[in-house]
Amino acid sequence: MEDIIVGRNPVCEALRAGRPINKIYLARNLKPATAAEVSGLARESQVPVQKVEKQLLDRMAEGALHQGIVASVSPYEYADLDDILAQLGDQVPLLVLLDGINDPHNLGAIIRSADAAGAHAVVIPRRRAASVTSVVARASAGAVEFVPVARVTNIAVTIDMLKERGIWVVGADPAAEQLLWDAPMDGPLAVVVGSEDKGISRLIREKCDLLVRLPMAGRVNSLNVSVAAALVLFETARQKRNRLS
Amino acid sequence: MEDIIVGRNPVCEALRAGRPINKIYLARNLKPATAAEVSGLARESQVPVQKVEKQLLDRMAEGALHQGIVASVSPYEYADLDDILAQLGDQVPLLVLLDGINDPHNLGAIIRSADAAGAHAVVIPRRRAASVTSVVARASAGAVEFVPVARVTNIAVTIDMLKERGIWVVGADPAAEQLLWDAPMDGPLAVVVGSEDKGISRLIREKCDLLVRLPMAGRVNSLNVSVAAALVLFETARQKRNRLS
Repeated sequence: MEDIIVGRNPVCEALRAGRPINKIYLARNLKPATAAEVSGLARESQVPVQKVEKQLLDRMAEGALHQGIVASVSPYEYADLDDILAQLGDQVPLLVLLDGINDPHNLGAIIRSADAAGAHAVVIPRRRAASVTSVVARASAGAVEFVPVARVTNIAVTIDMLKERGIWVVGADPAAEQLLWDAPMDGPLAVVVGSEDKGISRLIREKCDLLVRLPMAGRVNSLNVSVAAALVLFETARQKRNRLS
Repeated sequence: MEDIIVGRNPVCEALRAGRPINKIYLARNLKPATAAEVSGLARESQVPVQKVEKQLLDRMAEGALHQGIVASVSPYEYADLDDILAQLGDQVPLLVLLDGINDPHNLGAIIRSADAAGAHAVVIPRRRAASVTSVVARASAGAVEFVPVARVTNIAVTIDMLKERGIWVVGADPAAEQLLWDAPMDGPLAVVVGSEDKGISRLIREKCDLLVRLPMAGRVNSLNVSVAAALVLFETARQKRNRLS
């Protein structure tokens, strides 16, 4: 079974990350400079490159914006959460737990923010949630190559395991009493966000050490889940920096 | 010319906001409770409701997820920025200036965050940028009915006008020296974010009073533009609250 990565940035990031790529397909009408950049990276990684008609790329990309560049890759290899934790050394763990994100664009956007905010892993449930696909890779702007994504059978069991290791579990919930900015977010942390329509499920909410919310000043007063995740993740960075200064 | 709004939340928000709606179309197989909710709101606003086959809604929605609910409305009426400023009274202005956002999902997400963070308006350029459509309305989760969107011919001229009124203009730029958290963000403010691929244009960047960035801890190290906008907008809220406490 093969998967594909489409678009210049995601393909280049996959090459730079050393991800196993079977072959790269470039449109014949691709700008020479872009073709040279991709071909150069591909040569360094000994990945074969083939020039093809744009129509073939259109078919391979199934409607996604490929910018004349498609890579055929082995399916995404999920990371093992135990391995990730074991390799952290003396880093303060920062994990993102997704309780049922369904939209691949949101999953990709969260992985992108997790990379930028320095999170060590994104954890998703095996069932009833978006998994890592080429759409996710593209929405992550290539960050999926650098932030390990672990898939677990049961987020609740994972939370219990993390708590035993001294990791604090903080859920983003619009109904929380505590404001994000007042919560202690600079220690070993797992940030939980819930699904687009229902938020965090009751069971998971009850397992969280703390629930936090953003103050809402408007009329609709809901945030996109990837925006909420980014606000919580960057608040951990702000507090860690404050503590140091 | 008619525009449409699709989906339960956007249509209900449009009704609650008193937006002129020509007619609401409900799928025959819609859940009775949902149909009753929408019909009830429609009755209060004297908007006619018609039950139709799902296939007709599919055609009207042109692929958007309509959840069995489509409203036909007059085209979006842009607000006038001078009017908005005149009506602010003694509120501290908070505006969002978009220098060429192209993706309607990003525009919608920014309007949604602008609502939640208490911004008074979103300003977009008349040309070469996404305008307010039903896709934007849906991505905004209905917030487009509450946050006025103003369209201007020239963002640079608008910035000059805002500066003359004592409004500080802060641009989000990954190459900025100043960290967002260190910048004074609690006064009269216009937040500028640039396009998805190029960021803020050179001319606009030079017109900003200050450029700010988020610290980046990862490998890809770029943020989705709607995430960046939300981080800046909520930082203004955090600082305003800090000043009060």
